[in-house]
Parts: sequence; C-alpha cells; structure tokens
Amino acid sequence: MTAEIIAVGTELLLGDILNTNAQFLSQELAKLGVNVYCQTVVGDNADRIYAAYEAAFQRADIVIATGGLGPTQDDLTKETAARFLGREMRLDQASWEKIQAFYQSMNMNADTHTAPNSQKQAIFPEGAVILPNDNGTAPGCCVEREGKTLFLLPGPPNEAIPMYLNAVIPILKTKTDAQFVSKMLKICGVGESAAEEMIKDLIDGQTNPTIAPYAKTSEVWIRVTAKAADEAEAAEIMRPTLEEIRRRLGDHVYGEDEDTLEGVAVKRLLEKKLTIACAESCTGGALTAKLVDCPGVSGTLLEGAVTYSNEAKMRRLNVRAETLQKYGAVSAETAAEMARGAAETAGADIGVATTGVAGPGGGSLKKPVGLVYLGLHYRSRTSVKELRLAGDRQKIRARTVVNALDMIRRRLLEEEEEE
Amino acid sequence: MTAEIIAVGTELLLGDILNTNAQFLSQELAKLGVNVYCQTVVGDNADRIYAAYEAAFQRADIVIATGGLGPTQDDLTKETAARFLGREMRLDQASWEKIQAFYQSMNMNADTHTAPNSQKQAIFPEGAVILPNDNGTAPGCCVEREGKTLFLLPGPPNEAIPMYLNAVIPILKTKTDAQFVSKMLKICGVGESAAEEMIKDLIDGQTNPTIAPYAKTSEVWIRVTAKAADEAEAAEIMRPTLEEIRRRLGDHVYGEDEDTLEGVAVKRLLEKKLTIACAESCTGGALTAKLVDCPGVSGTLLEGAVTYSNEAKMRRLNVRAETLQKYGAVSAETAAEMARGAAETAGADIGVATTGVAGPGGGSLKKPVGLVYLGLHYRSRTSVKELRLAGDRQKIRARTVVNALDMIRRRLLEEEEEE
Repeated sequence: MTAEIIAVGTELLLGDILNTNAQFLSQELAKLGVNVYCQTVVGDNADRIYAAYEAAFQRADIVIATGGLGPTQDDLTKETAARFLGREMRLDQASWEKIQAFYQSMNMNADTHTAPNSQKQAIFPEGAVILPNDNGTAPGCCVEREGKTLFLLPGPPNEAIPMYLNAVIPILKTKTDAQFVSKMLKICGVGESAAEEMIKDLIDGQTNPTIAPYAKTSEVWIRVTAKAADEAEAAEIMRPTLEEIRRRLGDHVYGEDEDTLEGVAVKRLLEKKLTIACAESCTGGALTAKLVDCPGVSGTLLEGAVTYSNEAKMRRLNVRAETLQKYGAVSAETAAEMARGAAETAGADIGVATTGVAGPGGGSLKKPVGLVYLGLHYRSRTSVKELRLAGDRQKIRARTVVNALDMIRRRLLEEEEEE
Repeated sequence: MTAEIIAVGTELLLGDILNTNAQFLSQELAKLGVNVYCQTVVGDNADRIYAAYEAAFQRADIVIATGGLGPTQDDLTKETAARFLGREMRLDQASWEKIQAFYQSMNMNADTHTAPNSQKQAIFPEGAVILPNDNGTAPGCCVEREGKTLFLLPGPPNEAIPMYLNAVIPILKTKTDAQFVSKMLKICGVGESAAEEMIKDLIDGQTNPTIAPYAKTSEVWIRVTAKAADEAEAAEIMRPTLEEIRRRLGDHVYGEDEDTLEGVAVKRLLEKKLTIACAESCTGGALTAKLVDCPGVSGTLLEGAVTYSNEAKMRRLNVRAETLQKYGAVSAETAAEMARGAAETAGADIGVATTGVAGPGGGSLKKPVGLVYLGLHYRSRTSVKELRLAGDRQKIRARTVVNALDMIRRRLLEEEEEE
C-alpha cells in the first residue's frame, strides 16, 4: 500500500514553519508498512491544492492532507477536496455543537462562535467520516473514492498528531494485513562506524527484521523493525536479533525506545538511594539542567555548581591553587579535584565534574578546542576521562554533557559488577 | 519569478530526518522576492525524480533540488537531471582533484579516493556551472534550459546552506530586479496579541514595508520586509516603520536580527564591567548554561549555583531556615534571599535567582504548576518578579530562563535611566 502526504499552508512555503507533520506521518506510515513515495507542500490556493490531489490520487492508495481546515477564507482544503471528489458540502450538526461548546469554554466573546465563519469548520464533503479534534476546533475527516482514501487533518501538530493516533490508525489498520513494529536500542560510548562494524553481518544478512543505525549527538541508535501480522508476532521475530545486538554491544546499550541517558542515570541513582552533586566549567550548567529535566530528580540531586572562574573553583569546590597553577583549569587533576570537591562540599555520594575548552577562543596547541576532562568521585575513588571532541562550541558542550551522563551510568554499572 | 524545491532522499520519506532545507530555501527565496509555490520530497528513485523535475519545470522558473549528489549508486539526482535535460555527463577535472585532496586531508585510506564511486561526485551534466562545496565532497551545479534554471545542491544542511549563500544567491540576483530585505525586531516582556495590538494600525496600513509578528518562547519577533532595488533603498523604506515600532514598544525591544537575549545581557554586563552570579532552583542550571552560550562570558560570570534542595539553598546561599519554613521554597522571599545570597557569596555585583513549580508534580492550589519567582539583587537592592507560566515542565523552565535574562537586561536599562 502506498501513501502521499500533502501539507497545505502558505506559511510552509514562506519557510515560517517547519513541516514536522510530514516527518511524523512518514514515520508512522512506515510503521504500518505503508510506503510513502512523495510529500508535497502547496499554499492556500484552490487550484494548486486541486492539482496536488489529482497527482497524489494517480499514484497512491492513501492521501493524507494536513492544514487548511480552519474558519477563515484562506482555509480551502476541505472545499477543494469536495470539488475534486464531486461531493456536496454538508453541515455536521454534532461537530457544530461541539465547536460552539469549545468556544464557550474558552471564554471567547459571544460573537465568535455565532459568526458564520466558525461554522465552516463543521461543514464536510458528503459521506465523510468525521475525525474528532480534542485539541482544537476544526475536526478532520476521511473520504473514500474508488478504493482510495483521503484523510484531511488540521495543520497544528498538537491537533494533527493525536487525531492521527486516535482516529486515522484504526482506519488504516483495516486496510493493511501486515504491520511494521520497531524497537530502538540506544547506545552510548561507541561511535557509529564502530557500532555498525560490530553488527555488520547482522545488518547485511537480515530482511525481517531489518536493522538500521542512526548517529546522534555522541550516541548511536539502532532501529530494529519487524513486519508481522500483529505486535506479538513482531516481538517474537525481533527477539533473537535484539538479544544478539545487546550481547555484542554489551554495556554500550543504555536503554531502548523512549529511554534517555539522563533518565536512566537518574533512575539508577534513585534506586540505589545515592545523592549526586555536579561541578561544571565548560558545560556551564547544562549537565545539571539535563538531570533536572527528569521529574523526581530532587530525590537524588543535591546541587550543582557552575564554577566558571578559577576563583570559584577554589572557593566553592576546594580546588587547590597549586593544581590550577601547575596543570591549568582544563586538566585531569582539576577535573578530579572538582568532582571530589562537589561531592564533599555538598555532602553527596557522587560528584561529577566537567572542564574543557569549548571554543571558539581559548584553544592552544597543547590544549586544543574540544579537549575536555570529566571527573567522577564516588566512594573515595576519583576517576577521570579525557575526551577529544569535534564541533563548534554548542556541539562540544552538548557532547560533554552526554559523555558525563554516560560516565555516571557506567560507574553505577561497575559497582553492580563489583558487588 | 517562481521557484519550486525538490528534496530527494528516502530518509525524508521514512521520516528519519526533517526537511529543514526546504524551510531554509523558502525563507531565503522569499527574501529575494521569489515565490515558492510548491515543495516536493521524493525518494532515491530515478523515475520519481524525473517526474518531479517534469512537474516543477512546467510550473516554475527556478527549480532547486537538494540531496542525492553523493558517491553511491543510490545518488541519482544529477544523472536524472542530465537525462531530463538531454545532456551528457562529463568529468570536471578540477572538482575531481579537489575531491581527492579532501579525502587525503581527511586521512581516509588510500582505496577510498581512487574508487570509481567517489569520482561520480565530479561528473556533471554538460554545460553545468559547478558550485563548490567547502564543507563536504560533493559539489553542486547549476544548469539552464530555455530560460529556466535548475540548481542541484547536496543534502546535508551544513553543505547546502553555505553553498546556497555563497554560490546560488549571486546567480539568482542576476535574474531578479527587485529584492526583499527584512529586519527582525526582537521583543520580550509583552505577549504576542498585546504587541500586535500596539502596532495594529501599522500592520493593516502598510504594503511596503510589510510587518509580521511571530510568537516565540516568551518572546515576540516582528519582521519588517521591504521590496526595493537594493539593500540601501530597502533600508530607507523600512527606517520610519522600524523607528515607529521601536517608539511604541519602547523597552520591550531588546535587539534585532541575530541578537539574542542572553547575548544582549552579557554584552551589557561586560560593557559595564559588572560581574554576575546565578542561583537556580526550578531552571536547574539552564539559566547559567544560556549565559555560557555567549563566548566571552567568563569576563562577567563568576559562578552559578543549582540549589535544588532546601539544604543547598541554606548552605550555599545563606537562605534562612525560617524563610523557607514560613514562605516555602517557591516564594518571593526565598527568591530574594537566593539572589542576594548568590551575589554576596560569589562576591558578584549582581545576583539572579529562579525558584518555581515546573511540574508535572509538586503543584498545589496556592502554588500551582507554573508559579515562578525571579529574584535580582544589585547595588543593595533586591527586586522580585512573580510569573504565572503555562506549558509543560520543559516550557515552564524555558520561559523562566527567558524572563530571568530579560530581568537582568531591564535592571541595567533602569540604571542607565537613573544615571
């Protein structure tokens, strides 16, 4: 089965907004085994919308259009669909009542919901199945013609995405006999090409499931996708491949699907009832902020210190003046003292520290931009890791954060092995 | 003049990557007064690429295709263009030498650059103008046919964007007689609808320049665009409008174009030779990290303290136990003591503090999710600002950071007025 996606909206053609709907829908359709051969963007113009429908219906079984369902005269997606399909437009009384209730609950002024233009959102091509919108006023719809199906969804992603998940998927599932189920393995501590090398024979040999690696900021994600009649069968097909990848990549695999490195680190800290404190130089607070992204972090994070100046490193973390003088602020020795100082001054079980040259200035032959030291102090043992990172200031700092989170995760893993 | 954008790449159709090139090119073409009527995405498939060229050449004067210029058999954009245009493919010796040099400088193994597939990147349709690629191996090209122009650019944005700016714009400028020049005014401290209300008559009345507001995270950006023969004339056309908007919005305007709120705040701190320290609770380090985004920040930022726990607020910042007990961690009183404590313990001129309920848990009737207090201590005066922010945990924290940066900026402005 093939599909095409048509996004309608002049703001897309002006580049004012990114077409994230096309990405979302493409990802979702791939999961169902539906091939997307074309994505198109056209403006709020009836002739060009008509031409886009015409071209898409020639090539695809499923056409999903987003945008242009609103109340204004610019919104032409539904009206043009009716003309293209040769259908009349009809008021859907239930939708109209829901729209009126929505405007009332939003405390809009009385004029708004009685104006004829808001009723436009409740008028659909004859025979359309209405797709309810729980996050906005304009419902979507689904119309069939000669075995082909047109879906019309609203433009705002916070309306289009739930509508797709709640209303479009069930309809699509009635049309496909197989579905694609994916599992994402998340990996840190090994580069993309090295990871790929370790599983090359698996990637080359397999057709169901398929295996695809993706490079992320200092991470690698490996997607395993199975084609099967249902999710249970897909899980069974993927199981041996997932186990084999996990076996080969070992500790580098930190989680799967929605897991994040910070989430995994915080979860493990909370399980072990350990407290943590951060001392940051080059990352400037971004490491602590990443930890604070995780709800419940207050159970483990005691504090973070952004000690950008040498003076602050000494005063806040008890880094010794002679260490800074002899080895410099960007050194293994300073990273170690920062980590120990973070743990000790905060009274935390674990101290983690970052110091490095993020650029653009400040690099030298001996200490080039991208040189970063991570320190981790735990149970009277301080370990240090040296990194040589590529990229601009933002990239270097982002990669440092990922590596620091991974260092925390691995230290707690080691401990499990020691126990 | 009209243009269409064709993005080639199966990874776009799978939703693995977002089509940011289409957004960038659309924005840029709009600046030149070129109307984009359609954006298309097709996979790495010769027939569908051919059909996309055909459709685009029927409708537009300029066609820009991105992606598919690489060395593998999947990369078909150029070959298909040659077939569509009826041209032979020819090796460009200069490009080939540059590609070989590039691979050598990257320390690739000797086999790589002599393999026939990497030479593919130096072969172009006859008569093409070569567009050099300073950030990758595959050059782009530009081919004319019957008054219409086809540009082929690489897929990776870090290659396509500089190539567009350096090589495509000069060619496009020879084809247009008017250009569009924009100036973005950046505003903080007033909502989008209030800002729009303040300049509504200007927006409604004007056709050249045009005025368009955009809502950003706790900011509003207003784009003023003039159509003119050249940049000097455009600047002259925009000047009275820009002055009038600035007059009406006053202090809310913090900068223009590439200015950022953190950049403006840091610049002003450096000019005034003032030092700053941050104390963060709900933002968890994100405010300090934002300041550290600015190169040169070490001249003003002494330190940041992420005092997530009450204990850390007391120990690090000398917040009094009775304040925390009586008013709670999320209170005007605590924010004030945190700000003063940050300044005093770091020995900084300015202390800035955040404390709030970012959610998802932790809210109550009296202190709901989204309640945030900002504190600012400067010259023995401590001011506090209460915010009621909407959104999820990430949004609330991001909005708190923006408001805190704006509070710093405004405090320094006030001072100028006092002086």
